Amino acid sequence: VLSPATATDSRHWELAPPIPDTMSSKGSMRVLAYGGGLDTSCILVWVKEQGYDVIAYLANTGQKEDFEEARKKALKLGAKKVFIEDVIREFVEEFIWPAIQSSTLYEDRYLLGTFLARPCIASKQVEIAQQEGVSRGATGKGNDQVRFELTWSSLVPQIKGTAPWRMPEFYNRFKGRNDLMEYAKQHGIPIPVTPKNPWNMDENLMHISYEAGILENPKNQVPPAPNTPDILEIELKKGVPVKVTNVKDGSTHPTSLEFFMYLNEVADKHGVGCTDIVENRFIGMKSRGIYETPAGTILYHTHLDIEAFTMDWEVCKIKQGLGLKFAELVYTAFWHSPECEFVRHCIGQLGGKAQVSVLKGQVYILGWECPLSPYNEEQVSMNVQGDYEPIDATGFININSLSKVTAK
Amino acid sequence: VLSPATATDSRHWELAPPIPDTMSSKGSMRVLAYGGGLDTSCILVWVKEQGYDVIAYLANTGQKEDFEEARKKALKLGAKKVFIEDVIREFVEEFIWPAIQSSTLYEDRYLLGTFLARPCIASKQVEIAQQEGVSRGATGKGNDQVRFELTWSSLVPQIKGTAPWRMPEFYNRFKGRNDLMEYAKQHGIPIPVTPKNPWNMDENLMHISYEAGILENPKNQVPPAPNTPDILEIELKKGVPVKVTNVKDGSTHPTSLEFFMYLNEVADKHGVGCTDIVENRFIGMKSRGIYETPAGTILYHTHLDIEAFTMDWEVCKIKQGLGLKFAELVYTAFWHSPECEFVRHCIGQLGGKAQVSVLKGQVYILGWECPLSPYNEEQVSMNVQGDYEPIDATGFININSLSKVTAK
Amino acid sequence: VLSPATATDSRHWELAPPIPDTMSSKGSMRVLAYGGGLDTSCILVWVKEQGYDVIAYLANTGQKEDFEEARKKALKLGAKKVFIEDVIREFVEEFIWPAIQSSTLYEDRYLLGTFLARPCIASKQVEIAQQEGVSRGATGKGNDQVRFELTWSSLVPQIKGTAPWRMPEFYNRFKGRNDLMEYAKQHGIPIPVTPKNPWNMDENLMHISYEAGILENPKNQVPPAPNTPDILEIELKKGVPVKVTNVKDGSTHPTSLEFFMYLNEVADKHGVGCTDIVENRFIGMKSRGIYETPAGTILYHTHLDIEAFTMDWEVCKIKQGLGLKFAELVYTAFWHSPECEFVRHCIGQLGGKAQVSVLKGQVYILGWECPLSPYNEEQVSMNVQGDYEPIDATGFININSLSKVTAK
Amino acid sequence: VLSPATATDSRHWELAPPIPDTMSSKGSMRVLAYGGGLDTSCILVWVKEQGYDVIAYLANTGQKEDFEEARKKALKLGAKKVFIEDVIREFVEEFIWPAIQSSTLYEDRYLLGTFLARPCIASKQVEIAQQEGVSRGATGKGNDQVRFELTWSSLVPQIKGTAPWRMPEFYNRFKGRNDLMEYAKQHGIPIPVTPKNPWNMDENLMHISYEAGILENPKNQVPPAPNTPDILEIELKKGVPVKVTNVKDGSTHPTSLEFFMYLNEVADKHGVGCTDIVENRFIGMKSRGIYETPAGTILYHTHLDIEAFTMDWEVCKIKQGLGLKFAELVYTAFWHSPECEFVRHCIGQLGGKAQVSVLKGQVYILGWECPLSPYNEEQVSMNVQGDYEPIDATGFININSLSKVTAK
Repeated sequence: VLSPATATDSRHWELAPPIPDTMSSKGSMRVLAYGGGLDTSCILVWVKEQGYDVIAYLANTGQKEDFEEARKKALKLGAKKVFIEDVIREFVEEFIWPAIQSSTLYEDRYLLGTFLARPCIASKQVEIAQQEGVSRGATGKGNDQVRFELTWSSLVPQIKGTAPWRMPEFYNRFKGRNDLMEYAKQHGIPIPVTPKNPWNMDENLMHISYEAGILENPKNQVPPAPNTPDILEIELKKGVPVKVTNVKDGSTHPTSLEFFMYLNEVADKHGVGCTDIVENRFIGMKSRGIYETPAGTILYHTHLDIEAFTMDWEVCKIKQGLGLKFAELVYTAFWHSPECEFVRHCIGQLGGKAQVSVLKGQVYILGWECPLSPYNEEQVSMNVQGDYEPIDATGFININSLSKVTAK
Repeated sequence: VLSPATATDSRHWELAPPIPDTMSSKGSMRVLAYGGGLDTSCILVWVKEQGYDVIAYLANTGQKEDFEEARKKALKLGAKKVFIEDVIREFVEEFIWPAIQSSTLYEDRYLLGTFLARPCIASKQVEIAQQEGVSRGATGKGNDQVRFELTWSSLVPQIKGTAPWRMPEFYNRFKGRNDLMEYAKQHGIPIPVTPKNPWNMDENLMHISYEAGILENPKNQVPPAPNTPDILEIELKKGVPVKVTNVKDGSTHPTSLEFFMYLNEVADKHGVGCTDIVENRFIGMKSRGIYETPAGTILYHTHLDIEAFTMDWEVCKIKQGLGLKFAELVYTAFWHSPECEFVRHCIGQLGGKAQVSVLKGQVYILGWECPLSPYNEEQVSMNVQGDYEPIDATGFININSLSKVTAK
Repeated sequence: VLSPATATDSRHWELAPPIPDTMSSKGSMRVLAYGGGLDTSCILVWVKEQGYDVIAYLANTGQKEDFEEARKKALKLGAKKVFIEDVIREFVEEFIWPAIQSSTLYEDRYLLGTFLARPCIASKQVEIAQQEGVSRGATGKGNDQVRFELTWSSLVPQIKGTAPWRMPEFYNRFKGRNDLMEYAKQHGIPIPVTPKNPWNMDENLMHISYEAGILENPKNQVPPAPNTPDILEIELKKGVPVKVTNVKDGSTHPTSLEFFMYLNEVADKHGVGCTDIVENRFIGMKSRGIYETPAGTILYHTHLDIEAFTMDWEVCKIKQGLGLKFAELVYTAFWHSPECEFVRHCIGQLGGKAQVSVLKGQVYILGWECPLSPYNEEQVSMNVQGDYEPIDATGFININSLSKVTAK
Repeated sequence: VLSPATATDSRHWELAPPIPDTMSSKGSMRVLAYGGGLDTSCILVWVKEQGYDVIAYLANTGQKEDFEEARKKALKLGAKKVFIEDVIREFVEEFIWPAIQSSTLYEDRYLLGTFLARPCIASKQVEIAQQEGVSRGATGKGNDQVRFELTWSSLVPQIKGTAPWRMPEFYNRFKGRNDLMEYAKQHGIPIPVTPKNPWNMDENLMHISYEAGILENPKNQVPPAPNTPDILEIELKKGVPVKVTNVKDGSTHPTSLEFFMYLNEVADKHGVGCTDIVENRFIGMKSRGIYETPAGTILYHTHLDIEAFTMDWEVCKIKQGLGLKFAELVYTAFWHSPECEFVRHCIGQLGGKAQVSVLKGQVYILGWECPLSPYNEEQVSMNVQGDYEPIDATGFININSLSKVTAK
């Protein structure tokens, strides 16, 4: 085991002797992204054991958690300071809204709830780290490490990461969960995991994911969904949802947080937004995940429909390609990159209002009100001809078939 | 009104005097794609009125219809001959399977049921027409005319179309549904439409679509879905579903038609496969449609999951772009085009087995069995390290962040 | 032949009786995009012959032409008024600069000189037409008609086009060049074409194209190119070239017109910018063309190099896809469309300076000066290590090969 | 410095203690991709110095080199065995032909000569290594290491690489060229480099590249190009060039090697195929390179033109996107990957013949003969109407403008 004296910088500490330590001025303090669970609790203790002071940082992105309990636990485990930061509003307005605007699902099915939260959490961590020096906790597998460290590099290149799960000293000692539990027992770290509460869950305001394959499939346990829909009116301004009204009871939810939470509630009630997929991870592995994104799913469908309704067909197709790129960049942790900024710059902002029905796992659009829409009732109607001349279709068809015909 | 003497060719007849009639040798017979409903019945009578003999052609693509009744009706309205052709197997195996293999939804939501059937129906019509000369019935709006005529041009360029709805003689006379109904009354054409049976519906084995906006929303009328799932095992060989087994009752469905119908039944029972969208039509209009694609939806999800499970990540991304192109080409009626052939050639063929759960409007994948999968249980597992060296992630992250860091 | 009394609107006049004339209020005046050559001269006379007054409109986009001669000729042929409009500055700044910014060649070889000029010319024509009513001259083949009419539709939908070459009255009379020449002789229209001056040439400040296959290949006739290069310094601000300096003689060319003409001169001297391609026309035909784009080629290479030098790699790749779309949209006449506006909005604007050498048909970049470039001399140098840690490449490679290895 | 006793496996040796050596059974032999120059000569000696036996492997990909001299040198420096493998035919037929078929330039300018050779060279190296154990020489910067190691991983995952330039023991000792030259002097390694013969050059049958920025710009030193063109007839079968004939002197070159060398000669004579670009390297750096690809440039243009001539427009556009992906994959060293195989599977194979003129840095196509071409002389001609009906363009234009018009 390396002593702090010869390895005071987080990144070089990890790879140790071959690389000269150019960052020792950062001191012996680490800012640990602390989750309160088994793994980050063990890491907290282990990092301390290596001779460092630990600042525990816990971001509130809307997960259901007893933050005061977590604070006490971190202090009890030896953290010098604990920062608990409410970043919900940033999360919704700076990260979720652009994702809704992109109208994209990663690999056709996944709304990227975890991947949107990571650059948000890491951004705040960087702020804290800029005063104090930095460390980090994550598993040595999965995408988390990439998501955190690329955010740091992009925002403040000088700040490097410690990734215990990538350090031989750590991963040779902790080969898996059993070793962690053993260590936890030895060091008085509470073990919160029960079969009903899998340790490998990620939760925030936007979504819950379950990655482990062992757990009971939660979707078979949902209570029966009601047989009557909830009808919501959702209003967008400049691509951003601004108000949600329940049409039946007239209740309105005027701030982003309020209506996001309200949409979560409605979607949950009707079983909307659960997917169970095999996904392709950035670092070349496939894994299975179950994702619940209730409000996100309602907003995704609403935005997609307003878009189909108001946006030129060809613009839709170009935007669709950019949306796929956006999803890929978010998934691969490049939110804070020139290319992701470029894509966000491209994706335009829509306005409009839609009424949606939420029922039995589905979101149906009932109607729209979008002043700039190219939709033209007369044009499509079967009873009136409007501006469209039927005879034009002949030439259109003939010209379109020309290259096919002459190819014979 | 033009007399047959001066306009004996179908296409030039339509545009009449300015274009010399070079096709009069085709004679005075028309092959009408007859649907049995109000519009094609009126067209049948009207084309006869213009002095032509009419062959009625009705394709059986799996729609629920009394074909013998339709045959009698066509003959009663004056058709010289009636062809009723069962093309279900061609439809499933030559058109639906490639669409499932493409893993694509048009505009993120639509499985293209109508658009896959059109080139199938038109292909058979061309076969008939090659002996007899050809005509056609379709609305003067929408995508149907393009879909039929481009298929003809591609397969047998010499065969041209008649499109009464694009002919001024016709469309100036029949401004809409009311004029058709009036004409129907005058000519003894039965008017089958009732409020519960909208005239503007399209149905085949794969799907039912409702385009008219006036109808009651059918999704609010579905009976309550059961609270227990059906569990199905679906087997694919060379990209093609070959067998479906109900895991609970052990029933197997070994031929494509049998299991497609069985999947329709199961999906319908659980409310799977209904979408309600605004779509962008080829000829520049937007319109609203409700689409039900029960079996197609189960197979789409199954194939997509087997693909995510067995296919290299980068191949998935390239294939995704080709899938979008495929959907666009099918939607814009270019099934029988060099570019669509090229895309079908590109899209590979997967094998494997999946167990899926169908419940409350959703299709969940429960498990896979795919011998060639890159999935590697050890690799992803949290308890064993397998081939993956955690330390490698450091270099991976650092190199990935290099261009971002130096851009500062 | 139709009389003006029954067909006073240009568009409906063309298709005549079937479609009611709703635009007769536009009067009997036509604004003809007059080129001064055989075809538009014949059309001018022929349109007059149909009973219309003709306003001749000739845009100066930088072609070498005796505009006063053309004015006299138009008046002599019977034009009521002649507008000769200098649109060179608009052409360079509003149309050529965005094309340079897109860094794109249509079908890998063509800088789109004709296609950029058409929407520029048509925009001004619409302005004139808004006061006077409108007509147009173009060949009935090729892309020109689409380019003009789609511009009009986009800018002022009420203004419709007359396209004599698409009118049976016209094209049945004039089956080709020989009929036009006959007509010209009968009506005293001068025939300017000689074997050395092909009639089917298009020229503007940006380029010259020759479409006819019969002509002598001009590239074999160029004078010997000099053996010493010209060295130019080209400066860009916000994506727009703002100054060109000849490094050897110190001459500077500070306005867009001046340096564009100067670059044309230098490029011509060194044989830069000539391509001879088969291209795919919008309406489904392939044809051969020879294009000379001297200044455009220098600027294309300069911009492409500054871009490669200053732009993030991933941004380059995304932009490349948008550039292909841009070229396709320009080629297919959709400059004034929502999708082309969207693409122009996406494509960013670079700054910087480059020195280029122009010699023997090639443009070589000698150096750059771009303050925001991610280029980092230390990083790439073989003698100094800079920020880059060689050991990181190991992990990078291992992770990248992971999915390939496990696929075995 | 690590002793062989504790680090007998090449890959783990590099990262040493933390990772257990699971590959020691491979023995103490290394297969070094030996180039004969300063760097690989030093590496050969240095690897021996670490206690390993070295097998030198030198691939003949068509570079101008005295291979017997190189063999003697390697043996003199202490190599146990020397393999000199002629892989020219594999290089041309398995690597260059697919690149020509892709019709792609990396970043719009570069024909990928180095990047096509690397997987070819590495494939053969793997064959040798499978009997003997493996090592490798490359710079610790640039793309070479990735190109070699990813090929190995893909073909034989068990074979790992040694990358001295990434090993701290090595790169801390050799900070740059000066240290290498010092080491060479101490160990009697000949130093071949003179200012006129830059050490950082890569050459093979397809191309020569110069990466170092210090050298005199070679393009200013070319002898005057002749003023008369060479006219060549190039024949393709199934996408592969099969014969080249000089039209003037009648000489024919019937085998792939013969005509590739002949095309190199002709292109060199006329100054064809030299580019000077800044490129984006895979590992996040930009660098400048001068590339000469004489025969490749002639074949690229010939294939591109035959493609434009014979391939459906829409197929061209889809293929263009796949071509960009192909270039990116080759550049980033993924030739031997599922995704690159997929792209090669997609890209079709053309046949035909073309006459090209090579003159003053340019390749001009004079004519084609392609039996399956959709090109239709009548259709495009201005004198005959063929199958095309001019009036059809009206409907085509109107429908195309419909969405734009109604968007107002």
